[in-house]
Amino acid sequence: MKKVKVGIIGTGRIGKIHADNLLRMAEAEVVAISDLFVTEELKAWAGARGIGIVTPDSAELVRHQEIDALFICSSTDTHVPLIIQAAAAGKHIFCEKPVSMDAVRTREALEAVLMAGVKLQIGFNRRFDHNFKRLRELVGQGRVGVPHLIKITSRDPNPPSPAYIKVSGGIFMDMAIHDFDMARYLAGSEVDTVFAQGAVLVDPVFGELDDLDTVITTLTFESGALAVIDNSRRAAYGYDQRVEVFGSRGAAAADNDYPNTVVVSDENGVGRDKPLHFFLERYNEAYVEEAKMFIDSVLHDRPLPVEGFDGLQAELIAQAAKRSVKLGRPVKLSELA
Amino acid sequence: MKKVKVGIIGTGRIGKIHADNLLRMAEAEVVAISDLFVTEELKAWAGARGIGIVTPDSAELVRHQEIDALFICSSTDTHVPLIIQAAAAGKHIFCEKPVSMDAVRTREALEAVLMAGVKLQIGFNRRFDHNFKRLRELVGQGRVGVPHLIKITSRDPNPPSPAYIKVSGGIFMDMAIHDFDMARYLAGSEVDTVFAQGAVLVDPVFGELDDLDTVITTLTFESGALAVIDNSRRAAYGYDQRVEVFGSRGAAAADNDYPNTVVVSDENGVGRDKPLHFFLERYNEAYVEEAKMFIDSVLHDRPLPVEGFDGLQAELIAQAAKRSVKLGRPVKLSELA
Amino acid sequence: MKKVKVGIIGTGRIGKIHADNLLRMAEAEVVAISDLFVTEELKAWAGARGIGIVTPDSAELVRHQEIDALFICSSTDTHVPLIIQAAAAGKHIFCEKPVSMDAVRTREALEAVLMAGVKLQIGFNRRFDHNFKRLRELVGQGRVGVPHLIKITSRDPNPPSPAYIKVSGGIFMDMAIHDFDMARYLAGSEVDTVFAQGAVLVDPVFGELDDLDTVITTLTFESGALAVIDNSRRAAYGYDQRVEVFGSRGAAAADNDYPNTVVVSDENGVGRDKPLHFFLERYNEAYVEEAKMFIDSVLHDRPLPVEGFDGLQAELIAQAAKRSVKLGRPVKLSELA
Amino acid sequence: MKKVKVGIIGTGRIGKIHADNLLRMAEAEVVAISDLFVTEELKAWAGARGIGIVTPDSAELVRHQEIDALFICSSTDTHVPLIIQAAAAGKHIFCEKPVSMDAVRTREALEAVLMAGVKLQIGFNRRFDHNFKRLRELVGQGRVGVPHLIKITSRDPNPPSPAYIKVSGGIFMDMAIHDFDMARYLAGSEVDTVFAQGAVLVDPVFGELDDLDTVITTLTFESGALAVIDNSRRAAYGYDQRVEVFGSRGAAAADNDYPNTVVVSDENGVGRDKPLHFFLERYNEAYVEEAKMFIDSVLHDRPLPVEGFDGLQAELIAQAAKRSVKLGRPVKLSELA
Repeated sequence: MKKVKVGIIGTGRIGKIHADNLLRMAEAEVVAISDLFVTEELKAWAGARGIGIVTPDSAELVRHQEIDALFICSSTDTHVPLIIQAAAAGKHIFCEKPVSMDAVRTREALEAVLMAGVKLQIGFNRRFDHNFKRLRELVGQGRVGVPHLIKITSRDPNPPSPAYIKVSGGIFMDMAIHDFDMARYLAGSEVDTVFAQGAVLVDPVFGELDDLDTVITTLTFESGALAVIDNSRRAAYGYDQRVEVFGSRGAAAADNDYPNTVVVSDENGVGRDKPLHFFLERYNEAYVEEAKMFIDSVLHDRPLPVEGFDGLQAELIAQAAKRSVKLGRPVKLSELA
Repeated sequence: MKKVKVGIIGTGRIGKIHADNLLRMAEAEVVAISDLFVTEELKAWAGARGIGIVTPDSAELVRHQEIDALFICSSTDTHVPLIIQAAAAGKHIFCEKPVSMDAVRTREALEAVLMAGVKLQIGFNRRFDHNFKRLRELVGQGRVGVPHLIKITSRDPNPPSPAYIKVSGGIFMDMAIHDFDMARYLAGSEVDTVFAQGAVLVDPVFGELDDLDTVITTLTFESGALAVIDNSRRAAYGYDQRVEVFGSRGAAAADNDYPNTVVVSDENGVGRDKPLHFFLERYNEAYVEEAKMFIDSVLHDRPLPVEGFDGLQAELIAQAAKRSVKLGRPVKLSELA
Repeated sequence: MKKVKVGIIGTGRIGKIHADNLLRMAEAEVVAISDLFVTEELKAWAGARGIGIVTPDSAELVRHQEIDALFICSSTDTHVPLIIQAAAAGKHIFCEKPVSMDAVRTREALEAVLMAGVKLQIGFNRRFDHNFKRLRELVGQGRVGVPHLIKITSRDPNPPSPAYIKVSGGIFMDMAIHDFDMARYLAGSEVDTVFAQGAVLVDPVFGELDDLDTVITTLTFESGALAVIDNSRRAAYGYDQRVEVFGSRGAAAADNDYPNTVVVSDENGVGRDKPLHFFLERYNEAYVEEAKMFIDSVLHDRPLPVEGFDGLQAELIAQAAKRSVKLGRPVKLSELA
Repeated sequence: MKKVKVGIIGTGRIGKIHADNLLRMAEAEVVAISDLFVTEELKAWAGARGIGIVTPDSAELVRHQEIDALFICSSTDTHVPLIIQAAAAGKHIFCEKPVSMDAVRTREALEAVLMAGVKLQIGFNRRFDHNFKRLRELVGQGRVGVPHLIKITSRDPNPPSPAYIKVSGGIFMDMAIHDFDMARYLAGSEVDTVFAQGAVLVDPVFGELDDLDTVITTLTFESGALAVIDNSRRAAYGYDQRVEVFGSRGAAAADNDYPNTVVVSDENGVGRDKPLHFFLERYNEAYVEEAKMFIDSVLHDRPLPVEGFDGLQAELIAQAAKRSVKLGRPVKLSELA
């Protein structure tokens, strides 16, 4: 194999981002895309990129002899069956998070992957952010000593549509899941208990849809470390994604990215522009990086940076958080087994 | 009254700070101090400051006709009896936190104060910090809209001695109590439930003394807002006291103070000095400010900036946090009634 | 014209950067490159990019019927003849700075461009930096009022080789010329007088080659505003490119870019990584942007963002600075006419 | 001597600041003040502070047997005669800057001090600022290597009154003189040449009074280092006093002080309050520090932190700057001899 031939299933926003990032890599080639809705626009989009196959049938991609790897970017409910089919067909898999909203189903998918001996990377893009990568590196070098506390701030600039909220799996599974993965990634230890509290403060529609828009989750790790994550569906000043690791020798904290460094001082005070608006702006390079790592892993049979197990663990934490809110008490991850 | 004549009970570190601050105020006069241990050194200290009365007997100060107000800076177990005596003698009272470690006792003290019609200010000095005052002001002006989340980081540079830990009342009553007051102060609402988790990560001695050294407390408020506080008994880089209020219109965050603004860039990176080391450095001016406000309130019969009720509430939150750790579940403040 | 067909003359570092940036643009096509030294490596490089023509003869590109625009990235002494030939052949031109080291020659080139009615953009890439663009935008919006003072810090991480220094035209023509353009760009006024002072503090080799390595240049503008620029050939902490505009209503200042936002606090202090190392890292996106603007201008006949006249002015300021050092007095730009 | 007995000549704003600072020191006693205008208000002011002697006649203080040291805070034209008289009377002297506007006169004063063997400290308060002190310390420790460039930003929030401008000695002698001292202090070398350029951009009144309101001064030092200082009589955002030292191993930069650390993020951007407004706010502690050092030096016969010679040098630089503007060329300090 000199190039990884890729098929992309689902060409919504994120599927297209992956396609464009892969198209720029010398070691990858996008040979096919599938989407339930093959519009003229989509055909034109594929044509302009020299992508030969555009089909409504994902099975066509799964079967395609030349395809080495599939990017699964379709809706969450399709992830498990597609992973199972792809694994059976011997394709390597990149799958957006979450694998599913049901740990039993996710485990089935992981088992299929294991049996088939293919690779499965989960789309936890934030691990590839330049700030968080550096944070992890410093923690790994022992710069903060033994981690005691991990603090994650994670707020979106705007809530999704009610239609999306309905199928999102709720704030823990849809949004905080990234933070749960980040906490594990930085703690270097597995979660023991989860306690979550929440409120509907941004928009009553969240309450009507049995969801929350403002939550605080605290985690305890097997190592003894603690973590706390706060999420909000709406920060007036844009995307807010900060992480701090506090340990026995000090603390390391990653701030937001800003569009520029210009500071204006006038009679009203000192100011600068808001942080980068949302994930497309903030994690632009992280998406490139995660795809590169996947392609590299497939091509040279190197270890994956995020695996199916990581996806499962983050899902379990999200499930535990949901249950914790319901029961009004901390939930042990082991209770979910 | 043209000057408030003050007696100071207990001349440990904090008693002496209050004395020196009061001595610099045109509107106050320190006429007497009491301490269980009247050493030659203490006499010299008082002499150099023109303080006429130095006695081991606090009752002498309570009885003294000329004294208008008492600063109670002795050990916590003496606070309630002293408040009751002082109130009976018609003295105004400034009392260090906590009033007591038992809500029933604290309520007795507050009742005595109410009956006597004297003033009682509790030593929540952080409300007078220039950063937190400005934060409160901005929140009060609606700059962040309706508060949704309050985040407080509160870490000491070094743990106290085992002897102190033993009588401290534990990390919640001794240390986090300041943060509980800060959360109430900023939320503009009363606490509904408290959930606390903790670990012994800094020094096993905390565990041996049935205490914790690293804790996370989450609060829910009657307003619906949430708060989260993390405490550690040891931050390698010094005192870490940061507060953030996040609301419907934005966020306001107070950072630490630094000894200077100098930034050095060299081949190793970009660096600056650590934050101000501990509370004496950081809250130096806040101590002056709180004493000024008390004197001003006594002299001109203006409302107090922090009252006995505030002390009681923070104590109740601390009690609830302790119980939450013990029971492994959130505790409603109303359960403690 | 649906795409601008480009030939690149000179494929050193900067020529290759332009090629790669153009290759990524839908509206541009790189059809040919020329370089005095056509190595196997260069052929492979071009082959991998689908560039059909690789020749040692720049005239071949100038003559080529299909080429719409030429990027002149060869050594400075070739700029003027190439511009004159390209203009005569009706090609649009992007030329790296400086056009020449002799104002008479530069004016000849500009006249040829004017006569031929082609476009000539000069490679002042910093105007396209996200920070400086934002700065200019804010100044243009009147956020700082009438500009009074412009301050530019411009320091390289490492000196060039003695071989390069010899042909560089000296620190003013080679390095500060970018800052002279920036000052004009921000002042919105033409320079009246130039005063420069310098020293050899970084490496004696500069002195041996009749050059300086550390200089301060002050400018006065026709508007009455002042500017000051400091340059050093070696900053231990990397590339330092900061700009401040101070005016009647306030100040706007652009800081350096950093590879990440992570801050580490430990017992030694608070630190972060050094700024982005050099121009390739810092101005990566600015190079893309300037090429885009040029292509866009050619394709849609829009005004250029930097023209030949801007190149000439910056060269004149550099000449005046050099003369100022020699004469030990301020030099009026009009003296150089 | 157990306490230094001080007389203060001139009780304008700065005289009163020194008085209040001295009154708080255990090692100093303010026994007398003199002012041309002894108002009832001044008497009350002195009375409230227990200052026994209030006189319109400075000679009374000079003659007073018990006075050890005089603070000369009267108008500049009185400095030289007062220094000469005080020296003759054996009094130690703290004198506000400048000693005079005429180097010949200043030298006379310095000679008188030398002959009498008394101490003379000049009021260059900025050397005692916590930021600049730390900067100096770091430079002294070699943290930036050999200094190459010193950059000083020095801008006032508001211009003085025309009446003051008239007698101020001009922007160089009145305002930039502090920066000239700072440059010498940090360079650890004496100034060789001075080049200054200026404009009237803030208010035409400066031009009418033959003064400037916006100036840039460049200095060369005997060590080979360069310095550049920019001054403006009006910064819309308040007092702006920043200093940077750039050297062979890196750079150290001191930023402004701010009233608090609170940062507000909302839909309009990220902002904070303006820097501390003016010298009284910014250099509050520096005034205390300089007086303490003087008292300490007198009491324990320790070396002074700023001497008469420092005053003379800064004056000479100011004179050279003025002449440079007039002649339109750099002026060597040696030309002024």
